Amino acid sequence: MDYSRFYSQSSNRAKPSVIRALLKLVQQSDIISFAGGTPDAELFPKDLLAEIASKIIREQGKLALQYGETIGFKPLREQVALYLAAQGIDCTVDNILITTGSQQGLYLSGLTLMNPGETVIVEEPSYLGGLLCFRNFQAEFLPIHIGEDGLDPAEVDRVLTSASPKPKILYTIPTFQNPAGSTMPEAQRAQLLEIARKHDILIVEDNPYGELNFTGKPIKSLKSFDKDGRVIYLGSFSKIASPGMRLGWVCADPDLIARMTMAKETVDVCTDVLSQAIAAEFFKGGYLKDQLEKIIHTYQGRRDTMLSEIQTHFPKEIRCNHPLGGFFVWGELPKVLNTVTLFEKAVAAKVAYVVGTAFYTKENQGLNTLRLTYCAVSEDKIREGIARLGGVFQNAIKNP
Amino acid sequence: MDYSRFYSQSSNRAKPSVIRALLKLVQQSDIISFAGGTPDAELFPKDLLAEIASKIIREQGKLALQYGETIGFKPLREQVALYLAAQGIDCTVDNILITTGSQQGLYLSGLTLMNPGETVIVEEPSYLGGLLCFRNFQAEFLPIHIGEDGLDPAEVDRVLTSASPKPKILYTIPTFQNPAGSTMPEAQRAQLLEIARKHDILIVEDNPYGELNFTGKPIKSLKSFDKDGRVIYLGSFSKIASPGMRLGWVCADPDLIARMTMAKETVDVCTDVLSQAIAAEFFKGGYLKDQLEKIIHTYQGRRDTMLSEIQTHFPKEIRCNHPLGGFFVWGELPKVLNTVTLFEKAVAAKVAYVVGTAFYTKENQGLNTLRLTYCAVSEDKIREGIARLGGVFQNAIKNP
Repeated sequence: MDYSRFYSQSSNRAKPSVIRALLKLVQQSDIISFAGGTPDAELFPKDLLAEIASKIIREQGKLALQYGETIGFKPLREQVALYLAAQGIDCTVDNILITTGSQQGLYLSGLTLMNPGETVIVEEPSYLGGLLCFRNFQAEFLPIHIGEDGLDPAEVDRVLTSASPKPKILYTIPTFQNPAGSTMPEAQRAQLLEIARKHDILIVEDNPYGELNFTGKPIKSLKSFDKDGRVIYLGSFSKIASPGMRLGWVCADPDLIARMTMAKETVDVCTDVLSQAIAAEFFKGGYLKDQLEKIIHTYQGRRDTMLSEIQTHFPKEIRCNHPLGGFFVWGELPKVLNTVTLFEKAVAAKVAYVVGTAFYTKENQGLNTLRLTYCAVSEDKIREGIARLGGVFQNAIKNP
Repeated sequence: MDYSRFYSQSSNRAKPSVIRALLKLVQQSDIISFAGGTPDAELFPKDLLAEIASKIIREQGKLALQYGETIGFKPLREQVALYLAAQGIDCTVDNILITTGSQQGLYLSGLTLMNPGETVIVEEPSYLGGLLCFRNFQAEFLPIHIGEDGLDPAEVDRVLTSASPKPKILYTIPTFQNPAGSTMPEAQRAQLLEIARKHDILIVEDNPYGELNFTGKPIKSLKSFDKDGRVIYLGSFSKIASPGMRLGWVCADPDLIARMTMAKETVDVCTDVLSQAIAAEFFKGGYLKDQLEKIIHTYQGRRDTMLSEIQTHFPKEIRCNHPLGGFFVWGELPKVLNTVTLFEKAVAAKVAYVVGTAFYTKENQGLNTLRLTYCAVSEDKIREGIARLGGVFQNAIKNP
């Protein structure tokens, strides 16, 4: 039967993720894909989690297999509070809500804060899942271009001063941004908080990659600079241990946490308790430290290889950033080139990337940009893949 | 700081679940609680799930700990399709979407189908989580009173004939209803489908309790009678095995499944993959049969005890239904009595129930009704608790 008369306006507005469609396209085994943003499954702490899972179900199964509190499994909330406090965030268990992945943290932020037609400041480019989410709430976007240092606080100030009506929230990924790989320096973070205070807006800080830090020095989150409860901080288990265990967390003022918890009750009652109990034990046992060392070592090696191969194989006209951590290298081709049309040639050469335009708020922007992911590709494959892509770009530059 | 200016209209409209507040109140250890609707944790197949979890993570960890498809983990979708087909539902894997509990199935139905101000037909009384969910989408309710046989198709026809504007969907729990414990006879089911076709509406069939069948004879779901894709069927892992593993499923036309999947992408990307992989193995290994036998035996014994103790201890003026399965007994006191005011006396006598008014669409309705749950209380405690409650009601009838 024809369901078109039944679908909601919200459903008719929704667009499928371009990236998911693209990922299916490039899943042929002979393509070297720099497209996906998923962690390397080889790095999951499988044996450890198998052991913990078995122990938890046997010893705490009555809790771990039962419905849990909507706000989250208390032992995990406690562990996350300790984990964030150790990173310089002033928080207790009362500031923590566990979510079904950090995507749900984003969704609940939108559900709790956004009315149709209200404005969100977003970085451009930005995380596609964030843009899709706020679009679902019929948000208007006020995009601010970011460079290697992320958002420029002076620019945010200027935009906020002239914006009418005033945006309610600013959505940012200040550390190892997806897709731009940019990181906001600490001095800018303090300034951004000042500006948020001055204009009385909230900040949604999305920080899934913060722990994948290759610099050896801690990078403080925006939330660490938050003195008056202006930052809604979103963290994730996905990039540090396992995305299949759908676990994220919100760290925010208890007032906001209460509202988001009430919204979550309707959305899915509670987060998977079994995965929460396993994760609580993973944190409590102190296993994260070794896991982080292992994955940082691997990802950093791959970043190094990708950057040096880019140096060797890409035309000098292509500018790529130098990510300090996380998963992503962002590339800008000369304006005459178009990564959407070049994509077919790349796939013909058995290599894939994500077209940068997917990360913009409007269509046909960033047409000369692309995102490359090194996280789930071996160094050998990175060498081979970047050489192939270099060939495609060299040709394109010669025959634009 | 004061966040009130930031909250969305949706958040300001939301109400916390009365029941969750109440459950916290009655968690004192000396209260015998017939209030909660959670399964008995003693019945979870702990050792089996521990074994499966360990095996799955070791052998399939690269899949089970990784991001999964939004539509669900293929092996689980296949198992669920087989499981539903064995119950007489005409479906394949293409009809199945895995959700984060069946509450998310409800939420995605609302998100995909409802515009503000549109009307949903609901049973009265009905599942509170369903009412909260549709209210979140600013639905108008058209409630239809149900008796022991659930919805009366003729009444649905009458309501639909006179309704203007016409409702888009009907939300029903036809089997072992929460809270009323009612079950719609099969002949009525076929009629209800006819009426839905006549008036061109969709049906959301919520069936978390269908397998907890004490009659020994299968009861066909509404979906089994669905010839033209009019029923969105919601199932759940929560009542048959474990609610902590947040797993539900939608069975519907692939068109609807595609829309709901697109919506889910924004809500939480995918359902916990680890729990999906464990559940797939649980189904595949054929363990459900024994598990169902065990829990049906236990729950049926408790229902029998509760009904016979009610017979003994409750005043004759109180009418209770005779549930054929599931978790709930529904009671109606004489109209002069008020279960909200009696609740304090019950708690003083160390016994608890849920006030029936929680399950109505408007305030101050069903004030003489209550819901009793036998599922998580031992037979000894049921005897003691019903005797206590009988005492409270005897007193109330004598001194109304």
